[in-house]
Amino acid sequence: MGNKEWTQLWLGYKNVSNDNKTVSCEVVGFNKDSQVIKSALCELKSGLKGILSDEVVDNAGSYDIALTIKKVDAIAKEGFKLESDTSSVSILASDDNGALYGAFELLRQLSCGKKLSEVNVEKTPSNPLRMMNHWDNMDGSIERGYSGQSFFFENKEIVVDERTRDYARFMASVGINGVVINNVNVKDAATYLITDRYFDKVKELSEVFADYGIKTYLSLNFAAPIELGGLEVCDPLDEKVIGWWKEKAKEVFGKLPHLGGFLVKADSEGRPGPFTYGRTQADGANMLGDVVAPYGGIIIWRCFVYNCTQDWRDYKTDRARAGYDYFKDFDGAYHDNVILQIKNGPMDFQIREPISPLIGGLTKTNQMLEVQIAQEYTGHQIDLCYLMPMFKEVLGFKTYCQKENDTVADVVSGRAFGNKLAGMAAVINTGNDKNWTGNYLAAANLYGFGRLSFDTELSSEEIAREWIRLTFALEKVDEDKLTDMLLRSREIYEKYTSPLGIGWMVTPHDHYGPSVDGYEYSRWGTYHRADHLGIGVDRSDKGTGYAQQYYKENAEKYNDPEKCPEELLLFFHHIPYTWKLKTGKTLIQHIYDSHFEGEAEAEQLFETWKSLEGKVPSEVFENVSHRFELQIYNAKEWRDQVNSYFYRKSGISDQKGRKIY
Amino acid sequence: MGNKEWTQLWLGYKNVSNDNKTVSCEVVGFNKDSQVIKSALCELKSGLKGILSDEVVDNAGSYDIALTIKKVDAIAKEGFKLESDTSSVSILASDDNGALYGAFELLRQLSCGKKLSEVNVEKTPSNPLRMMNHWDNMDGSIERGYSGQSFFFENKEIVVDERTRDYARFMASVGINGVVINNVNVKDAATYLITDRYFDKVKELSEVFADYGIKTYLSLNFAAPIELGGLEVCDPLDEKVIGWWKEKAKEVFGKLPHLGGFLVKADSEGRPGPFTYGRTQADGANMLGDVVAPYGGIIIWRCFVYNCTQDWRDYKTDRARAGYDYFKDFDGAYHDNVILQIKNGPMDFQIREPISPLIGGLTKTNQMLEVQIAQEYTGHQIDLCYLMPMFKEVLGFKTYCQKENDTVADVVSGRAFGNKLAGMAAVINTGNDKNWTGNYLAAANLYGFGRLSFDTELSSEEIAREWIRLTFALEKVDEDKLTDMLLRSREIYEKYTSPLGIGWMVTPHDHYGPSVDGYEYSRWGTYHRADHLGIGVDRSDKGTGYAQQYYKENAEKYNDPEKCPEELLLFFHHIPYTWKLKTGKTLIQHIYDSHFEGEAEAEQLFETWKSLEGKVPSEVFENVSHRFELQIYNAKEWRDQVNSYFYRKSGISDQKGRKIY
Repeated sequence: MGNKEWTQLWLGYKNVSNDNKTVSCEVVGFNKDSQVIKSALCELKSGLKGILSDEVVDNAGSYDIALTIKKVDAIAKEGFKLESDTSSVSILASDDNGALYGAFELLRQLSCGKKLSEVNVEKTPSNPLRMMNHWDNMDGSIERGYSGQSFFFENKEIVVDERTRDYARFMASVGINGVVINNVNVKDAATYLITDRYFDKVKELSEVFADYGIKTYLSLNFAAPIELGGLEVCDPLDEKVIGWWKEKAKEVFGKLPHLGGFLVKADSEGRPGPFTYGRTQADGANMLGDVVAPYGGIIIWRCFVYNCTQDWRDYKTDRARAGYDYFKDFDGAYHDNVILQIKNGPMDFQIREPISPLIGGLTKTNQMLEVQIAQEYTGHQIDLCYLMPMFKEVLGFKTYCQKENDTVADVVSGRAFGNKLAGMAAVINTGNDKNWTGNYLAAANLYGFGRLSFDTELSSEEIAREWIRLTFALEKVDEDKLTDMLLRSREIYEKYTSPLGIGWMVTPHDHYGPSVDGYEYSRWGTYHRADHLGIGVDRSDKGTGYAQQYYKENAEKYNDPEKCPEELLLFFHHIPYTWKLKTGKTLIQHIYDSHFEGEAEAEQLFETWKSLEGKVPSEVFENVSHRFELQIYNAKEWRDQVNSYFYRKSGISDQKGRKIY
Repeated sequence: MGNKEWTQLWLGYKNVSNDNKTVSCEVVGFNKDSQVIKSALCELKSGLKGILSDEVVDNAGSYDIALTIKKVDAIAKEGFKLESDTSSVSILASDDNGALYGAFELLRQLSCGKKLSEVNVEKTPSNPLRMMNHWDNMDGSIERGYSGQSFFFENKEIVVDERTRDYARFMASVGINGVVINNVNVKDAATYLITDRYFDKVKELSEVFADYGIKTYLSLNFAAPIELGGLEVCDPLDEKVIGWWKEKAKEVFGKLPHLGGFLVKADSEGRPGPFTYGRTQADGANMLGDVVAPYGGIIIWRCFVYNCTQDWRDYKTDRARAGYDYFKDFDGAYHDNVILQIKNGPMDFQIREPISPLIGGLTKTNQMLEVQIAQEYTGHQIDLCYLMPMFKEVLGFKTYCQKENDTVADVVSGRAFGNKLAGMAAVINTGNDKNWTGNYLAAANLYGFGRLSFDTELSSEEIAREWIRLTFALEKVDEDKLTDMLLRSREIYEKYTSPLGIGWMVTPHDHYGPSVDGYEYSRWGTYHRADHLGIGVDRSDKGTGYAQQYYKENAEKYNDPEKCPEELLLFFHHIPYTWKLKTGKTLIQHIYDSHFEGEAEAEQLFETWKSLEGKVPSEVFENVSHRFELQIYNAKEWRDQVNSYFYRKSGISDQKGRKIY
């Protein structure tokens, strides 16, 4: 059985004052039998007791403060309004989820130090869909999991226990309203999740989620008509296939009333898909969309489609182009209950990539942004890498898809083009480790993604401080230190790993630690093309033409090495080592400096962390300290391997004469 | 259960004439109840029937030819003499094994086309110990196995069946007299091979081997006193540890009368050993030697000891030095029933290495040569790589350890210094594939190693032709073609892989296919140190000093890049790309030419093979053809990756303007 011990993450409800008041609680307008409202009340009771030592009583005769959860139809969907004065506080919402989120907001604000009478705020979620994607396999393993085993699956069985409920609480507390429980690579037992073999347990799991306003989604095996149905094909235009899916949808939605729909990875990295039958991605997605439409279901279709058996000798094929090339032409052809899930960058969750030109490139298609908080390429939850600064850059990126309302945040929220289906999804970083995320500090990404998907206007720093207050309740000076650590961590990781947007250079398969040529002569389309004169991939109009996939303003900028943002220079251009950067440094000198600095700054992070000894629980301190030791080892390897590689290749010495091997 | 179908390899006893004579068989002087003599008779009966359609009858009243197996004490140990005329043939030997080997020699000569009356030969084995080392694990996997699963072990149980007997026949037919059945990395269940858990089945297996004159050996876990005995240490000088081993040896040899002794990998790649306790390798080996001595047992102690957690930044530590450094100082200290097993090169079974300076460097210590016919670094039994030419070079290497009788063959046979314990061992290339060796042609290495260990004077070509005749019985013109393919294959593999003795450049862990920097920044001590000016490791007296581990004549040669054999140039020296080789070519041009030629020659091998369609059984043709397809893909990858790597690094173009990426 699973790990029986787990932390409460940011829902520890640490005591911040001792009012010892009584609070009466009244529900007005909502159905009092609603499980979600019950969850809100339950959370308020335990939360207020913890934070303020206030006792919540139901409709008590005498009380100090009146807490009301009240249905107000004018409030936006899933939004809430908190109103308070010295003797009352109201959570106003038009639906159950709004009320629940309002309750969590109240508790958050109190935990962060606000007085009950100071809580006055109105919030509407930025995104209609706010989802977590689990890459959990049914054998209990997690693809790219760095926090133990799955807490959903064990030995091909589904586990539903108290941890499931806590997981749902955590998700709801930051506004998550959809969870895909199984890996997008659907094989073996997972193919049977849409059969009688698993209906009872999926239903049980989905009911726990539903108590917290979360819909359950399943990743689908596109070849299910063959593997389950015994058909010879899974051609999306084949009548028998369509018929099979129709029956299946009827059965599945009949058995699983809380099911939101399906996530599909098709024609990608060996997964079956419509291309096998000469069909388009739209053909595949629309067919599934149509069969789930009668049940209110949606189809989330991943755009991570590319040729993963490229010949490294081929300089023309460009993996970065693939998503746009495969999906752009069918803009407008996707049905209303289909949404395309697009990774933030055109490659694969590197520490630095340009924004996918497909986002906003599509204007007549539902779009959802996919990011990864599992730190596959960003340090495996060993190295500290707080990702909100990256996500904020992504969300704030001007696509120029229209005159205004053109940022990624505008597009994926549905605001830009009026989509009802829109949102954000993250590949989650959890497992059954006691602390959920391996590294205690990696929980900042779990918390942060949820918060950001609910409110894309929050800053990285606001989120970091919230998380620190809720989790550790540090003195201000220490909170400042830890906030600063988090905020700098992504830049530091970038500095000591691959330079200027080139990405990769990681150990193949594992993706932790350096291997400069590890993916250089491989089939994955992931090349740096370094030779003795320079490095980088020419994606300008003289190269692969990828830069032309953007709207004019961005295309012109990316196309010209003089105008290209330097952090992406090597993504778009093959640049000589002697090229002068804006700092006046040569490219090669920048590579050396960045790697020496990045490693040194990783050591500073550890030093700062050491100063928090005694301020955080010793278990946290030891856990994170051990990871910092590994991070510094890793940073040194990156520094020395990358610098040695480029010194050996370029023959150009470090101007500062530092040790290169 | 294991694969139930298997071939007869070179013991197919194909019909070569139809004399239809009767042969009487008489045993003179030998114990007729000897299982080995019975095995010889049994083999002669089925063999003669197959080859000549002659019927062997026991002491028949009338017969055409009299076959006698006769004990003659003057014949050397395990040697034999065959004498014949038109009506009789005699196998003379002084011991059972000699008689058995004589029987196999008679059958081999007849299969190769000699007439019964022409068989007159006397042979004495070159080496007293002729061994196969299995790296079979008890879960059925084989470390570095490319021919299926183990036929000894399955699910932690020992399998003894008809295949075991055939295996023993094959081994005896080429003169093998010792087999280590389990992997040198002894873990988990294998640790228990020396306990009651497995005695019965090991005994059963060893009895099958004994029927064919083969002694059984086990790989030992040096930490067995801890893991089995519950002691806190396995310090070889600790009295409790010695006492435990004494009792264990008594028990094991009591239960396993056919046990020859133990093979030990200690202090290597994570295995426990005497270094843990500040003891020497001699301390460990001698302690075990003493405890097995009362039972006539021997200890084979591997010299593959090196620092496998080296820092790649460290240019002073040299893995190549390790064997000599660890073992040379204790020359003369090893007890008489201890023998050191030394890999042919100082690194690890690369396609080209110098000969280990430890061989012959030791003059007062029993030494055994270890080679690998499992093609770990030489093509995984996909690529054709007939290894006898390499082994002949090794055996013929003049060590200069004394004025004459100084070759590796002289040393490891015991001739040089009068050792009784001496010989050759191969890491075997078998598995439970139907054809035993994955690639049908890889059986030439299995056959060849046995033959060569019995008679080091045989040429690579003689062995190749024997094996081809026994296996395929081709027309002369086709035999010539296949012989030529085998003889050229090692040079071709060398040409398209790593240049001039530098080795490695393989995919980490797997060891198939190129990854030029794959081991360059690793902990394994396996570096090429290529930069924009040159490549190679300086192991001269100005570098790591490894060259000085050889006797003067070789040390001087290796120390000087002008005198160093060019095929080892980069092993011993860091050489500029512009260095002129003896051909007048620059080093870089040689790298390009060699890789283009090697790949082209691999294609020629396949073309030649195609011309044998219809000449070999179609199953063989298809099996080998498929592997040639993979080999050519592999050769192209090697060619293009190595050439691109060095072109990108050096910036020097191919003079012939061929395509480099």
